[in-house]
Amino acid sequence: MRAVSWMAFAVCMLVAVPALAAGAGDHGDPIAPVVLYLALILLAAKLGGDLATRIGQPAVLGELVFGVLIGNVFALIDNGGLGQIRENVTIDMLARLGVLILLFETGLESTVGQMLKVGLSSFLVATLGVVMPFLLGWGVGAWLLPDHGVYVHIFIGATLTATSVGITARVLKDLGRSQTAEARIILGAAVIDDVMGLVILAVVTGVIGAANGGGRLSYADVGLTLAKAVVFLVGSLYLGVYLSPRLFHVASKLKARGVLLAVGLGFCFLLSWLANLIGLAPIVGAFAAGLILEDVHYRDFVGRGEHSLEELVQPISSFLVPVFFVLMGMRTDLRSFLEPGVALLAVALVVAAVLGKQVCGLGVVGKGIDRLSVGVGMVPRGEVGLIFANIGLSLVVAGEKIVDQSVFSAVVVMVIVTTLVTPPALKWSLNRPKKVKTPAAPSRS
Amino acid sequence: MRAVSWMAFAVCMLVAVPALAAGAGDHGDPIAPVVLYLALILLAAKLGGDLATRIGQPAVLGELVFGVLIGNVFALIDNGGLGQIRENVTIDMLARLGVLILLFETGLESTVGQMLKVGLSSFLVATLGVVMPFLLGWGVGAWLLPDHGVYVHIFIGATLTATSVGITARVLKDLGRSQTAEARIILGAAVIDDVMGLVILAVVTGVIGAANGGGRLSYADVGLTLAKAVVFLVGSLYLGVYLSPRLFHVASKLKARGVLLAVGLGFCFLLSWLANLIGLAPIVGAFAAGLILEDVHYRDFVGRGEHSLEELVQPISSFLVPVFFVLMGMRTDLRSFLEPGVALLAVALVVAAVLGKQVCGLGVVGKGIDRLSVGVGMVPRGEVGLIFANIGLSLVVAGEKIVDQSVFSAVVVMVIVTTLVTPPALKWSLNRPKKVKTPAAPSRS
Repeated sequence: MRAVSWMAFAVCMLVAVPALAAGAGDHGDPIAPVVLYLALILLAAKLGGDLATRIGQPAVLGELVFGVLIGNVFALIDNGGLGQIRENVTIDMLARLGVLILLFETGLESTVGQMLKVGLSSFLVATLGVVMPFLLGWGVGAWLLPDHGVYVHIFIGATLTATSVGITARVLKDLGRSQTAEARIILGAAVIDDVMGLVILAVVTGVIGAANGGGRLSYADVGLTLAKAVVFLVGSLYLGVYLSPRLFHVASKLKARGVLLAVGLGFCFLLSWLANLIGLAPIVGAFAAGLILEDVHYRDFVGRGEHSLEELVQPISSFLVPVFFVLMGMRTDLRSFLEPGVALLAVALVVAAVLGKQVCGLGVVGKGIDRLSVGVGMVPRGEVGLIFANIGLSLVVAGEKIVDQSVFSAVVVMVIVTTLVTPPALKWSLNRPKKVKTPAAPSRS
Repeated sequence: MRAVSWMAFAVCMLVAVPALAAGAGDHGDPIAPVVLYLALILLAAKLGGDLATRIGQPAVLGELVFGVLIGNVFALIDNGGLGQIRENVTIDMLARLGVLILLFETGLESTVGQMLKVGLSSFLVATLGVVMPFLLGWGVGAWLLPDHGVYVHIFIGATLTATSVGITARVLKDLGRSQTAEARIILGAAVIDDVMGLVILAVVTGVIGAANGGGRLSYADVGLTLAKAVVFLVGSLYLGVYLSPRLFHVASKLKARGVLLAVGLGFCFLLSWLANLIGLAPIVGAFAAGLILEDVHYRDFVGRGEHSLEELVQPISSFLVPVFFVLMGMRTDLRSFLEPGVALLAVALVVAAVLGKQVCGLGVVGKGIDRLSVGVGMVPRGEVGLIFANIGLSLVVAGEKIVDQSVFSAVVVMVIVTTLVTPPALKWSLNRPKKVKTPAAPSRS
């Protein structure tokens, strides 16, 4: 009964605050709408997280679903006021900071050495997980859009390649599995397939440019893209491992409060910026920064009684990470499911996206690893797919748009569905009874 | 020697990163410039804080001064690239969030009951601290700008009234004095003079509107402004004290991580938004939220081993608060000191601003309170003065602008100087040897 009345109260708040907000003008401090939105987002995140947890699901699913609900309801009832929440620039930026912090935090839970141990598996998982969805997406395009050219089909394949690591990282964290071998393989593979996606994008747009006569495919450009990415990853990891202990040792001499957190965040932000500079996603830099930093580097701080970096980052992550997931939910325009001509293509793309990544399990080297969970963990597609689709909107071959509005909507639906199915699917897959094949797996006594 | 080489390295970084950044285009993720700016701001904050601490000053002075340095140097050498840092909208919003968090954190360190104990003192301090600078500013205007009308003189007086509480709150925190009676009197008075400033603004613009024939001074409007502010403050404190324990008790049933932090921040954000809604500064709402929340309200959380709200807010504050102070420094355009015709007016305004608040000490009721420190703590002027000056820029009486460009520049200089002198002055005043007048003061053995 108490839980019910609490829910009723919370729902009343979610309705009453917007009603109050509608009466407010735009005068005063520009931070005012932002803090109202943040209060609503935090409320929605915790209510959603509570409900999801109660029905045995990862909290992130609740954040996404509550985001979808309030995003679509606000847009419907109050398009001028609270409907603006999903277009607010500051909220968008806070969400982007949130996902950087999430990946940094995820990286902190592993070390470079642990990642190298699963490096071969990650590489094979990434390669299989890029090739298979690419071919399946191409096939779906050829089957359902026979009137369009082969470049359209290739491009559709390309939108399915890259895993969005945020969802999986968050589900693993919600379930307390971030430090398992499966988690490391998935996270490593997600970073590697980001690089592969980048190369594919360079090749595909180069090929299309060449076909269109307007440009040409320069192998040098493709090679350069690949080389920059590899140099960044290898270079930042090696240099970072060398520099990080020295950096923190010097920083520990600074007589100011909060130095450990400032240096840690500064390092994360700098690598995120560098990753973007060479054309990778900033989250790749944030994850690399987290991998590089290890407890032992900042023992000077912890030794004198300060909190560890993980402990310090956690409240920032509690604040900003839900902003990302609730906003992702809010941006899910349910109307895109209803667009005519989209449904069949969307369903086919979802099937190709999900099945395509199931071959990933075959890339795992070594015994006792839960291959199905690796495949499921690679399923979510996110920003990268949307970025590809966006670029496709502006590409033209022989007067034909590479990505038209209905293909774009189908890609959006694919991103939504793969994002929403992953939390429950991954939870099921990680917790299902497994055949006891290895001595490492505990018996279920 | 090691400290010297570290400084050299840090200065090299501050030069090298901008040089790298200048080569970067605007492609890629929009979060990229923001994270670069954040990394630089955090670096500058900690270096500045370190230097200030080494020479025995509050860390915030170093953050401000390093902000002034890099802001003016960046603007000079790279106006298109890093010079944009002080105009970046996201950095601005993060700084605004930072000062809300700072006032929330400051409020958390006191309770409503403790504030009521010093309520009379705060009220008298605020009243004296509004009347005296107002009269002095009026006098300065009449003396130095005899060609301008009396409304110009009145308006100049009004820009000197309201204390900017951020600086003082931060200095008190840096020195570990946030929980002293002096701190409570100053913070309470700063909240009250914000309300008084609001009423004065309503009266002055009403009078000017009436004089100009374009509007009329409605006593009802002035009364309404005052009533709304008082109802908000009294209402939020009373209702808050009643609701807060119940809210946290219910929230403690939520099965999700980070509920305490989310509910605490959500409460702070909601009151900040409400304060803005009725025309007060959002920081007043954030401070009120901090006052209302007390440890005992969330014992359900802490009792099961979670961190307290203060501990959870602290890393967020370490991250965002320096953004506010470094940005304040960066926005200090040193060229405004050099504008012709500004110097004398600026000096006179600074003197009026500093001396005007020294009568505040007379408002303190009770013994054993350091009256000089109360007066010094009320000195900094900030956003409110600038907001007044900005409004004045758009007011016209009989074809004459109420605030012209040189008056505006003089107000900016007044804000800068009162901000920069307060940290060292307050530190000196709090630590000076005092006559042992009361049994409460410990002997210096």
